[in-house]
This record gives sequence, C-alpha cells and structure tokens, in this order.
Amino acid sequence: MNTPQPKIAIIMGSKSDLHIMQDAADVLKELGVDYEITVVSAHRTPDRMFSFARAAADRGIKVIIAGAGGAAHLPGMVASLTHLPVIGVPVKSSNSIDGWDSILSILQMPNGIPVATVALNAAKNAGILAAQILSTGDETITGNLIKYKQELARKVEESAKEMEG
Amino acid sequence: MNTPQPKIAIIMGSKSDLHIMQDAADVLKELGVDYEITVVSAHRTPDRMFSFARAAADRGIKVIIAGAGGAAHLPGMVASLTHLPVIGVPVKSSNSIDGWDSILSILQMPNGIPVATVALNAAKNAGILAAQILSTGDETITGNLIKYKQELARKVEESAKEMEG
Amino acid sequence: MNTPQPKIAIIMGSKSDLHIMQDAADVLKELGVDYEITVVSAHRTPDRMFSFARAAADRGIKVIIAGAGGAAHLPGMVASLTHLPVIGVPVKSSNSIDGWDSILSILQMPNGIPVATVALNAAKNAGILAAQILSTGDETITGNLIKYKQELARKVEESAKEMEG
Amino acid sequence: MNTPQPKIAIIMGSKSDLHIMQDAADVLKELGVDYEITVVSAHRTPDRMFSFARAAADRGIKVIIAGAGGAAHLPGMVASLTHLPVIGVPVKSSNSIDGWDSILSILQMPNGIPVATVALNAAKNAGILAAQILSTGDETITGNLIKYKQELARKVEESAKEMEG
Amino acid sequence: MNTPQPKIAIIMGSKSDLHIMQDAADVLKELGVDYEITVVSAHRTPDRMFSFARAAADRGIKVIIAGAGGAAHLPGMVASLTHLPVIGVPVKSSNSIDGWDSILSILQMPNGIPVATVALNAAKNAGILAAQILSTGDETITGNLIKYKQELARKVEESAKEMEG
Amino acid sequence: MNTPQPKIAIIMGSKSDLHIMQDAADVLKELGVDYEITVVSAHRTPDRMFSFARAAADRGIKVIIAGAGGAAHLPGMVASLTHLPVIGVPVKSSNSIDGWDSILSILQMPNGIPVATVALNAAKNAGILAAQILSTGDETITGNLIKYKQELARKVEESAKEMEG
Amino acid sequence: MNTPQPKIAIIMGSKSDLHIMQDAADVLKELGVDYEITVVSAHRTPDRMFSFARAAADRGIKVIIAGAGGAAHLPGMVASLTHLPVIGVPVKSSNSIDGWDSILSILQMPNGIPVATVALNAAKNAGILAAQILSTGDETITGNLIKYKQELARKVEESAKEMEG
Amino acid sequence: MNTPQPKIAIIMGSKSDLHIMQDAADVLKELGVDYEITVVSAHRTPDRMFSFARAAADRGIKVIIAGAGGAAHLPGMVASLTHLPVIGVPVKSSNSIDGWDSILSILQMPNGIPVATVALNAAKNAGILAAQILSTGDETITGNLIKYKQELARKVEESAKEMEG
Repeated sequence: MNTPQPKIAIIMGSKSDLHIMQDAADVLKELGVDYEITVVSAHRTPDRMFSFARAAADRGIKVIIAGAGGAAHLPGMVASLTHLPVIGVPVKSSNSIDGWDSILSILQMPNGIPVATVALNAAKNAGILAAQILSTGDETITGNLIKYKQELARKVEESAKEMEG
Repeated sequence: MNTPQPKIAIIMGSKSDLHIMQDAADVLKELGVDYEITVVSAHRTPDRMFSFARAAADRGIKVIIAGAGGAAHLPGMVASLTHLPVIGVPVKSSNSIDGWDSILSILQMPNGIPVATVALNAAKNAGILAAQILSTGDETITGNLIKYKQELARKVEESAKEMEG
Repeated sequence: MNTPQPKIAIIMGSKSDLHIMQDAADVLKELGVDYEITVVSAHRTPDRMFSFARAAADRGIKVIIAGAGGAAHLPGMVASLTHLPVIGVPVKSSNSIDGWDSILSILQMPNGIPVATVALNAAKNAGILAAQILSTGDETITGNLIKYKQELARKVEESAKEMEG
Repeated sequence: MNTPQPKIAIIMGSKSDLHIMQDAADVLKELGVDYEITVVSAHRTPDRMFSFARAAADRGIKVIIAGAGGAAHLPGMVASLTHLPVIGVPVKSSNSIDGWDSILSILQMPNGIPVATVALNAAKNAGILAAQILSTGDETITGNLIKYKQELARKVEESAKEMEG
Repeated sequence: MNTPQPKIAIIMGSKSDLHIMQDAADVLKELGVDYEITVVSAHRTPDRMFSFARAAADRGIKVIIAGAGGAAHLPGMVASLTHLPVIGVPVKSSNSIDGWDSILSILQMPNGIPVATVALNAAKNAGILAAQILSTGDETITGNLIKYKQELARKVEESAKEMEG
Repeated sequence: MNTPQPKIAIIMGSKSDLHIMQDAADVLKELGVDYEITVVSAHRTPDRMFSFARAAADRGIKVIIAGAGGAAHLPGMVASLTHLPVIGVPVKSSNSIDGWDSILSILQMPNGIPVATVALNAAKNAGILAAQILSTGDETITGNLIKYKQELARKVEESAKEMEG
Repeated sequence: MNTPQPKIAIIMGSKSDLHIMQDAADVLKELGVDYEITVVSAHRTPDRMFSFARAAADRGIKVIIAGAGGAAHLPGMVASLTHLPVIGVPVKSSNSIDGWDSILSILQMPNGIPVATVALNAAKNAGILAAQILSTGDETITGNLIKYKQELARKVEESAKEMEG
Repeated sequence: MNTPQPKIAIIMGSKSDLHIMQDAADVLKELGVDYEITVVSAHRTPDRMFSFARAAADRGIKVIIAGAGGAAHLPGMVASLTHLPVIGVPVKSSNSIDGWDSILSILQMPNGIPVATVALNAAKNAGILAAQILSTGDETITGNLIKYKQELARKVEESAKEMEG
C-alpha cells in the first residue's frame, strides 16, 4: 500500500477474487492514482464491512471499488453505508452461475442506493472509472486518462496496419 | 403483533412487499404459530438491520423470514449477522427483471452463510417452512402441519371428483 | 454412519452426486451433528423414495437434505411425503443445463409444499442450515454454529492482514 | 368421460390448469379418440399419483398426458411409476417464471425415464401426439390424423389467397 | 443395420451428432427393437429430408427419432411431412448457445405439429420413448421395458447399500 | 399486390403475424420498392414452402423476407431451398417464450445456410435491409435510403430542440 | 435548462425514454445539482453524438448520464469519445427483450472504456451517482447526499412503526 | 489483400477476433469474391470507425461484414453511418457472457438501422450472405453459390452412405 492516504479503496469479498481485482490496482498505478487494497466480506465479516464503509469518507477515501461473486452483496451494502460513489465489479467466481448472479445482485440496486456496475470481471474498467471520477477535480489524472485513450487507439491502428499487410 | 414474544419474525425490505409477505403471516396464523412482522431495509436502514439481526436470538426469535426484491440483500445480510435459520422470499417487485435478480441474489449465498430460499413470491411456503422448523421441537405444530397436508390432499380429491363428473 | 439414530438424513438422486453431497456430511461432522447418508432416486426407485420419506419422521429424523440434478424431483417429492423440513441442493450434474434446470425444479415448489433451497452445489450450506434448524432446540449446536461463524470471520481478517501487507 | 375404458388419460396438477389442458381433450375428440380426464397432484396427493400411475397400464390406458406448472414433477414422477409413454405439458401457471421452470422440470429427465415434452401450454399438441402414438397400431386414427394435417394446410392456403388478394 | 425393415428410424442433422445419437441405437438394441440410422440434414439436404419423411410411413417406419443442434429444424420439419410420431433430441453441438437454441427450436412447435422432445443430448431417452410407443401394441417390448426399469432400480439399491456401508 | 413482378417477397408463417409483418411492406412502399406478400407455413404447408422457395429466383425475386414465431423454421428452411438472401424476422407470437425461441431458431443457422436476422418484431428493419440489398445495384433506392436516414436524423434533432426548450 | 453551464448532462436515445430519464433530472434538482437534458441518438444522429461527446468536457460538463434501450450503444459510444465518467441507464423500451438487451449492451463494455451502469430503468440512481461523483469535490452536495440518505432511513422507520402497529 | 477495390469489407473490433472472422474471408475466396480485411474498434478508435464507415460507399464497398464481442457496438454504429447493408457477426470473445451480450447488442437494433445478424461466431455465414447480396446483381457469384449448396448436399449424402453402411 501507499502513503499518504490514497483516495481509492479496492476491496473484495474473498482473497480468491484477487486475481481479478488486481487489474484495478494495476491500471490505477498506470494512471498515477494511489490506492489501498484489502479483503472485506459482507457475509463473513459484516462488522468489519460496517466499520470500513462508515469510516471510509472520514479517512479521506473518495471512491470505493468493491468486487464480489455469487450473491454479491458487498458493493450494495457498502453503498448503503456511505455517501461515497461505489463501483461494483461482478466476479465470475467458482460458485457463480455463469456470472448472472454476480451481475444481477450488484446491478439491480433499489432506488436511492446506486452502485456503478462494470462488466463481468472488468476490474480494469473499475480502476479507470475510479480515475475518471477523481479526474473531475484533478487535471493530472485527466491528462493521464487522455493519454491512456490515445494509447488504446494507437494499438488498434497498429493491429490494423499489420492485418492490412 | 402478538404477546408473548413470538418465535418467528417476518421482515421485508419495503412496505410495498407486504401484499406478498402477508401470506407468510396468514399461514402461520392458520398453523397456530405466533409471529411479529415489520419493515427492515438492508440498503436504506443498514443500522436497523444490524441491530435487528444481532438482537433477534436473544429476544427469543427462532426463525427469521425475510422477503426482498431486485438486488435482494436483506435475507443474506441478516443470515450473516445471526446464527438463526433465515428463510428468504424472492419478491418480484416492480424493479425486478422477471424475478431473476431477486432469486439469484437470495439463493446464491457463499459457503458458510446459508439462506433457505423458497419460490418467487412464495411467502406462504416460507411460513410453512418456518412452522416445520419449529415443529422439530413442538408436537402441536407437527400435528397442525399434518392436518394442513391432509387438507391439501382433500381439496385435490374434491377437484378430481368434480372434473371426473 | 453413526449410532444411535441420527436426526439428519442426507440423500441424493445418484451415487455420482456424492462428490458434491459429501460437503454436507463433512460440515455436519465439524458442527458435531450426527447424520445418515444414502442414495434414493425419485425416478429410478420411486417406491424406495416413498417408504424412505414416509418412515423418516417415525425413525427420529428431524431434517432431510436432498440433492439432485437436472429435472430434480427428489427434494420436492420427499417434501410432499413428509411434514419434516426438507433442504434441497441443486446439483450441477453432467446432464444439467448450466444448473438452471436443477435450481428451478427444486426451488419453484407450489404453495403448500416448501423446499428450503440452497445455492447450486452448496451442500455445505445445506449441512449448516440443517444444523441451524436443530439448533433452535439444542444449545450445544448453537454454540458450535457461533464458533463456526467466528472462525469464518477470523480467516477473512487473516487474509486481509496478509493482503494489506 | 367416456365408456368403455379410454386408452388416453389426461391428468393435471391442479384444477386451475384445466383451461390449458382442455385443448388436449378437445383435439382428441376431434380425432375420434376417447380419453379420461382428472386432477392428480404430485405434491398434494402423492398417494393418489402413485396408485393412478401404477394402475394405469392394467386398466387399459396406453398413453398418459400430464400437465403441470412451476416445479412440475407430475409428468416425470408418473413416468417413473409406469412403463407407458408419458407426454408432458409445461403449463405457464401463475407461479411460474415465464414458463422456464415448467419446461425445464418436465424436459430435463435423467437417462432411463423419458417424458415426451411438448411446447409451453401446448396441450393440443399433446393430444395430437397421443393420437399419433395410438395410430401406430390403429388405421382409423391414422386416417383422421392425415385428414387433420390436410385441413391445417387448407386453412393456410385460404389465408394466403385472402392476403394475396 | 438390420433386416427386415425396422420400425424405428434414427436420423441426425450431421455426422458429428453420431456420438450423441448412438445412445438411441444402443438402448433400442438392449430393448430388442430393430432400427435404421442415417444422416438427413434439413438445411443441407432438404430434398432428401422431404423424400425420407414422406416415404417413411409407407416403408413401415412407425416412429422417427431426429437429433439436431443449433437452429434445429430437422425434427419439426420431419413432423410437418409425416403423420408418424417424431421424437426430437436437442443436441448441444459446437455451434449451440449452451443448448438453449437446440431445445427451443425443437420444443416450441406450433399447434398442429407436435415433436416429442426429450432432454438435451438425451438420445438414450429418445430410444426408450420410441420403444414405449411401439410397446403400446407389442407385449415383448413391454416386457423388456419392465425389466429395464427393474434393472435401473436394482442398480440404485446397490449404490445405496454400498454408501450406507 | 403490384405489377410487374416485384423483387421482394414478404412471407409469414401465419396470418396472425400480419400485424407485425405489415411494417416491412409499409417501409418498402415508403422507399419506392415493390413487393409481394403472402402466407407460407413451413409446418402446415411444407409443399407450398418448397415450391415457393424453389421457384422464387426464377420468378425474378431477389430477396425474401420471412417472419415466424416460436420454433420458427420458415426463414431457415427457405434459405436451405434457395440461393437468394433470406431475411428472418423473429415474431413474438402468442406461443413464444418472450421471443427467445423465435430469435434462436432463426438466428442460429448452421454453417453454409445463413439467415440475415433482424431484431424481435423488427419487420420494418427487414424491409429497410431488403432495400439496402437491392440498392447495391440500384441508384434510385440508394438515394431513397439516404433521404430516409436524413429524415431519421431530422426528427431526432427536432425532439432535441423541443426537449432543450 | 439552467444557467450557468451545468456540470451534468442527461442524454437519451429517444424522446420516448423521457418518462424514465426524467427521474435523473428530478433527483438532481432535489440534491441541488444543475443539469442539462436533451436527445442524442447514437444510431439516428451519429454526428450529433460525436460532436456532443467530443465537446462536453470543454463546455464544462463533468459527468454524462446516458439512457438507451434495446441494442443500447449510446452510453458506450459516448464513453469512447470522452474521458469524462459516463453513467449508463438501461431503458426497458418497447423493442427490448425484457430489458436484457439494454443491460448487456451497456454493461459489457470492453477493457479501457468503462460505463458506470445502473439498474434497469434506474435513472434516479444515475442522478444520485452523478451527484456522488461531483460530491468528491463539493461539500454542499456531500451534505445534501447525507441528508438524502437520512431521509430514506426515516421513511422506512415510519413504515416499520406503522406495520408494527 | 486484393486489387482492384473489392466490394466486401470485413472489419472486426479487435485483432483477437481474427481467428473467427478469417472464416468470412476464406468462404468469400472460395466463392470467388474479393474482400478487404482490417481492424476497426468502435470504442478504442471511434474516429477511424467514423471515417471508415462514411467513406466505404464512395470507395466502392457494397457490403460490410463487422464482427465484435461483448457490448458489440461496431456493426450497429457502422450501420448508422452508412446506407450500405451491414452484416453483424456476434463473437463469443473472452469477456462475453456465453455470447448473449454479443448477440443482443448486435441484433436488437432500433427501427431505421438494421444489422443483418448471423449466428454466434458464424463468420462463414456472414461471408456467404455477403456473396448472396452481391449475387443479386452478379450471375457468376450466383453460379458459385449454387455449386456451393450442391457441394454441401453431396457431403451429407456421402456421410449418409457411410453411416448406412
């Protein structure tokens, strides 16, 4: 983890989600944004989840990225406990039904408590979205995002040249 | 509500779920089992949910019936906060996608934290299941359940006679 | 198997479901609850299913855990034949369509005949739920369940410390 | 009902399925095939189902048409109890999830115990299929089926002429 | 193949379906029923399909088993071209979407033209169903089916003894 | 219908699909393209379908639009019988399961026999696509299509002005 | 619309989506956040979409809320054209298949181009999420969000009192 | 690639789709139709997509085949930018949910902007369909298509002979 207090917290329901959620960490690093990362289980450590979510804003966290699979309650419950924007990553865990359970239990939040849901396993996009949120008040991150998009385009154009022979 | 402390608590995520959840109350009455009934929202009143679930066993509650729709986190979160058996009723609420979200976010709980899930909108079956659970230590309820099943059969046989003409 | 007569019966539609259903047995052992385990097929041995389900309560069984896959009729038919609580485990067997058939044919029971359904392949949760049901009249099992939950939390906190480095 | 003993039995899980299942009766009448019709519930009258299915062949029944909705176990359980061909009609009952539960719990039978499944609510096709089965040994029914098919074609050709103007 | 003319024809949309459809042939052999087996593609050989289906009854065929995958039109089109009972086997071929396309395009036939659909890849059940249909007029096959069912039960009881230890 | 021989044929499996398929006719008229329209049922009039499809190219038809619902075999079977491009319109008919059966049985054609599938009930888009196909060799239709697209844009811009107030 | 330049833009693919998207506008007003609202169609006005999305950041827009139904490309395409955070609202429009198409074509964005997706028809949650994003740099909005959450809780507690009688 | 300007353009959202999209190229070669092939990403290179689609007709392109996976916007967006017929190939890419997202986001286009969708991964059928479209004004391609269909039939008949032994 990083010092001083990062503005992005990445949490996940289980250590076994790390191989997916690491993508969020990696892209944040690439975009020059500090983060912290840990395990918080809604179902196995509800107290830990409560204290984490309730304390996050006061600690200086601005955006929470939460990944979970199956009946994935972590993103929605964290969103119920804080006024911060929460990004949900549906993880296709081993106990998931092709990912549908993870997606629907994160996405279909009731009125009043949004979760910003990204694609199945799309932790990288969660990281980019968190950076976009911070960028609304940070010119450096904005610049990094613009460069990131240009690089995406450059790589496609390279592929195109190669394929066109 | 009833005195003394009933052993069954029926909770629901929203007042608008009452027209479904009332079936649980009605069948419990029919089976001679006392209950209490109220609204507890996982997303809008997380503190209330915490204190309700944490206090339930000490108050004498033996079984909790929880109904919710959409990204339905109430049954699973209550199950994470108590060692009591929790029965989940997926409600096909207006913001639900044909009920799939309600079902999957209640049913697909991770290892360690079961929710006894019944069919979509099947609050009546949740009530019967709660009575069955109590009946494992109560001969009167057992007798009532046996009579209830006989009555189900009697009605079908009546229909059969009618149809066979 | 165990003597004297255990209060939990674990049954499954086919020997090939044992690698899933064993989890129910293992967690019951861990929680100090005796069980019996056998094969009962609704479709291939309907008579055996009838006599098993009809005799269960008189033998002293308090809860039946039934696992089956595909058009999984075992849990629901057993529930129709006894007043005991029946826990259904949808098994993703080789002839299942991603588990949807197993889930829907166990979960969607008509009014009057509940099956307490757990997640796909979640035999461990079926075992825990059976223990929770017995615990409504048994302080020892209650104690074991509380310790089990504490251990779940402890392991997550350990993972968290490790990840936070 | 008809005398002497008809060769086709139409059964349904609930009186409320009659508005669908009547189509089977009507088309059988149209095809000149006698039938009997009644209510047999797998879940509410398991004994009645057992004795019905076990006695059917000896009474002279040759084909059983069984309609049911939700976790629809009637067709499959009857098939497990007799060597007669069983035709299953998935009924989109009020407690069904868009009919998927009815279809999957009738169609996805395990190896050894087939159910001849027709389309959702397609009791008319169940009737025709039953007649086709009898027709393998009955020239009169064969003739009626051939005329029925010709009539289907004639009506389409009439529509075509009308539309082509 | 067999002489004289068998009463069951097994057809499939592609040679690549043979590893599934062979199960129908094998169980028919086991039940003492002759069959013929070949490839008929609705989409690649529509003329062959037409002449096959139109000639089948006159050749002495009594039941047609048709297996196909993806947009599986073979069973339904054959049913439109003959008055014989047609059994459809949805094959989960490589170009299928988890089998849903195969199932729905075989099962959901319009009124007037039934296809007796069995479970995904369940060619064995198609074979048994074909034998059941013939058995309505053949005591030997009836006897073989009864023995087959008894053997299914015997094997389960053997498994049960083994598991009960 | 129109004289001389139009290049587009619109066919549908049942007269009851006309309220959907009329949209194809209307947009073709709007785009200045002649068409013929009639009923051809794959399942109820297979001979009519055969002769229609086999004769279409020789009569001067260039594109066939075929709409059908449920187990919708008409577009795919017509495509198997002609080398002309066939556009399939999945119709959400009354016997359809939310349209999934119509879509999958039209879309999922095997290699070698494409059907150009449009959205559920999107007969208007089938008409536009047919015009686009003809426009590859017809400058007038090209011009009409360009104007049609401009008109679509104009209407959105009008809505935008209205909403922006 | 409001002066000066608001920081939130609400766009929708069609005027007919307004009855859903108005909820975003209403909740933003309630939270004290200015917005602009208009129609931008990805498919009917691609040029308008391009110039809108490319100009948004320079005009001072900080967050874009985009609602669309069916094959809903507007949110994802706008996200591809700007570095601003884009919130997608899947609308269950009349041409949608139960909303699944709207959800999947908004949610399942490829790596590099996130769309913050909310529940089906949940424009209110899109508005709240947009306010949460702005609140990361705005104490007044933070205060309004905290009050909004408290009010949600208060209403549930009121319902609870009423139901508990 | 080929000179002079081919009439078919094959594009795909990512280089990783080439192993699927190559089938379109191969079958076009087999049918004697020239093509060009390249990468155009709707989300990563929207400008490139715009200029490609806007210029295609003037360059002499007559049909565009576009393959993409996940939230697959390329075919629909290209269709919005040109009056040419666009064929969409849903690719089951690694980030796709069993292909459902790819299918629905290509197929379910709104009125006015059709995409001719083929089966999941069915790039070969996209190639054949493109050839069929050109064949409406080209006798040589018509001849090649007729031969191609005859060859499909011949291979099935060969398989049939082999299987019939």
